[in-house]
Amino acid sequence: MATVTAEIIAIGDELLYGQIMDTNSHWISQELDAIGVRVVRKTTVGDNRNDILAAFEAASQRAHLILITGGLGPTQDDLTKPLLAEYFGCEIVEVPEAVAAVSQYFTRRGREMTPLNILQGHLPSCCTYVPNEVGTAPGMWFEQKGCYWMSMPGVPHEMKKLIKDFVLPKLSTVFELPVIYHKLIKTVGIGESLLADLIKDWENALPSHIRLAYLPSLGHVKLRLTAFGENKAHLRQEVEQQIQAVLPSISSYIYGYNEDTLEAVVGKLLKQVGQTVAVAESCSGGFISHTLTTVPGSSAYFKGAVVPYQNEGKKSILGVSPETLQQHGAVSEQTVREMASGVRTLFGAHFGLASSGIAGPDGGTPEKPVGTVWIACAGEGFVETKMLQLTQDRMINIQLTGVAVMNLLRICISKSRQ
Amino acid sequence: MATVTAEIIAIGDELLYGQIMDTNSHWISQELDAIGVRVVRKTTVGDNRNDILAAFEAASQRAHLILITGGLGPTQDDLTKPLLAEYFGCEIVEVPEAVAAVSQYFTRRGREMTPLNILQGHLPSCCTYVPNEVGTAPGMWFEQKGCYWMSMPGVPHEMKKLIKDFVLPKLSTVFELPVIYHKLIKTVGIGESLLADLIKDWENALPSHIRLAYLPSLGHVKLRLTAFGENKAHLRQEVEQQIQAVLPSISSYIYGYNEDTLEAVVGKLLKQVGQTVAVAESCSGGFISHTLTTVPGSSAYFKGAVVPYQNEGKKSILGVSPETLQQHGAVSEQTVREMASGVRTLFGAHFGLASSGIAGPDGGTPEKPVGTVWIACAGEGFVETKMLQLTQDRMINIQLTGVAVMNLLRICISKSRQ
Repeated sequence: MATVTAEIIAIGDELLYGQIMDTNSHWISQELDAIGVRVVRKTTVGDNRNDILAAFEAASQRAHLILITGGLGPTQDDLTKPLLAEYFGCEIVEVPEAVAAVSQYFTRRGREMTPLNILQGHLPSCCTYVPNEVGTAPGMWFEQKGCYWMSMPGVPHEMKKLIKDFVLPKLSTVFELPVIYHKLIKTVGIGESLLADLIKDWENALPSHIRLAYLPSLGHVKLRLTAFGENKAHLRQEVEQQIQAVLPSISSYIYGYNEDTLEAVVGKLLKQVGQTVAVAESCSGGFISHTLTTVPGSSAYFKGAVVPYQNEGKKSILGVSPETLQQHGAVSEQTVREMASGVRTLFGAHFGLASSGIAGPDGGTPEKPVGTVWIACAGEGFVETKMLQLTQDRMINIQLTGVAVMNLLRICISKSRQ
Repeated sequence: MATVTAEIIAIGDELLYGQIMDTNSHWISQELDAIGVRVVRKTTVGDNRNDILAAFEAASQRAHLILITGGLGPTQDDLTKPLLAEYFGCEIVEVPEAVAAVSQYFTRRGREMTPLNILQGHLPSCCTYVPNEVGTAPGMWFEQKGCYWMSMPGVPHEMKKLIKDFVLPKLSTVFELPVIYHKLIKTVGIGESLLADLIKDWENALPSHIRLAYLPSLGHVKLRLTAFGENKAHLRQEVEQQIQAVLPSISSYIYGYNEDTLEAVVGKLLKQVGQTVAVAESCSGGFISHTLTTVPGSSAYFKGAVVPYQNEGKKSILGVSPETLQQHGAVSEQTVREMASGVRTLFGAHFGLASSGIAGPDGGTPEKPVGTVWIACAGEGFVETKMLQLTQDRMINIQLTGVAVMNLLRICISKSRQ
């Protein structure tokens, strides 16, 4: 069975000039990936006749399936429909069913239809008309030049509905689709190169129908395993066996799989043990608290936070001793210890987290340069601390501090359960 | 003067399979648009030799400038560097300066460099080495096949720094760029359609060489004026005159221009009057505090924050009265009044801000559905409050609350100066 390949073409000057970000292609990729269609190219072209025709021709050489978004508005700068007709050598004709649908769309909304809108019901004679129930530009399906083509409006919710209601069901009738199984392994606290080093023997021994990709982001690296075959249950079993085989090398860095986020995993761990957390954050300025509360239902385990951005607050609200601040400074192991313990007591939480550092760009000294951050996690009878040496960039330092603190909490919860 | 054209090529299977959204190309488009370089195509290809080489060749036929992101990691699936060398017919050689930079990058972070990382300092002999100060994969500049090429890592902050520090200055030396003058007018607290309605007469009367674009984002709308001509000083004068003409219609919604952010503008206003702010945030969970502290130097006016995510903290730390909470509930005008005043007193700040609401997805009631948020700003002798009716989406509600609170502070500071 040959792999079905696809190309996504997005059309519109506004995409090239940076006025609108193309989120459609990303969404379509995910939908196609999930059914085993391999996207081999994404192309964005402007509202230009030659560029669009060249993109059609090139795509037809590369892919079995071509999905086109945009360029279907009622105005003259929208060229997709006439150029599809030209490219396939057919006429644009009135499709009474499509004109009626556009008319009904306006009637339902109590709005007037313009002559331009009526023309939206005129379509290339060689296409299959695909009704768009949530907008005025119809979808068009073509079987031409040895490929399958679908043209859709660029408005995201209209495109998505056409993909779900028409394109995905259609694809399973016109193609014999492969069986694919994906799994993401999510790691934190280790860089891409070091991770690659730890698992290189395992990686080299992977069978050829299971592929590995490294997907790094700030403070995290995701490992994506993709297995191709004929039987989904079998592929799943193979992938799970491979994961079991690699676990001993990297288990302490793994916080979850697939859609798991670090903050949601930490939240789930806290819920499981019926415990709570509070945060005292200085250099991270509210970011840790924000991250924890992006998780729906976090009020079950998140008691609250204090952001003492100046020394007074550290003393008066969290009870950090003036001597500690004077002797060791705000950015010190001693201070984060007292902050973590202080906020734990203040909110009556099981765990208290703390951060204090020099986010930058100013405030660095030779002993404590920009990027120096102390973090702590206090629990029943212990305080764990760690020093981080981060970057020169304020925003990155804030985010990396957030990831490191969340990971420290994850480790402390796991330890406290043993 | 001929228009300079550009193509952006993003490389990586993860972009085609929908694992990562390519936000780089959009950002690069905006930067190129601002200097009058016309992006004619965006191409995304996977980690595949033939596809990448074909994309290079096609781009060299279409554009004067080719910007490439991604495929520069240290692992085997990253092909950009060897394929650039192959395409231009040159060897990959050790660049001692680049190896030293990678080594220093690891030393500064107290981390071990792997053999794979050392290879990141080996580059095609025909490229100009461009140091990447915030990552391990260097930038590479080529003048080959009649085009200018720049290859950059896909990590957004690394790519952005290379574009700003190297590419943009370089382009002004290798191309004769058109004369363009841009200005962004930044508004908050008004939607795109309403704004368009307020300024439609002015918009229709704009001369043809001055273009207007609406760039909406969460809670904000930017108006971008772009003037084309021959003399920058003259264009600037014309644009400023147009801005003066539109000001009376929309001045209360304008918080700044160009690179101004709402949080930086608020910070500047506070510094000017020598005043300070503290925040008590419930439903926004630390996001307002985080936003304020993204601004370098915010410790000059930001005293701190409390995130009392449960009622106990609202009472014990901020002094909200138990009767208020019992009679009106946590999401009420009375509660945010007391939270704003309480946090103002706690930190001894000039202004106290507060938020309390139902971020969702759960916790809504018929009287207070998801998206109901109360916000407040307390100052010397006053408390301003406002109710917001936001969306069903937790993240959007958090962010819109942040924007609304920041705007309320902006208005209160401005009023207090009059």
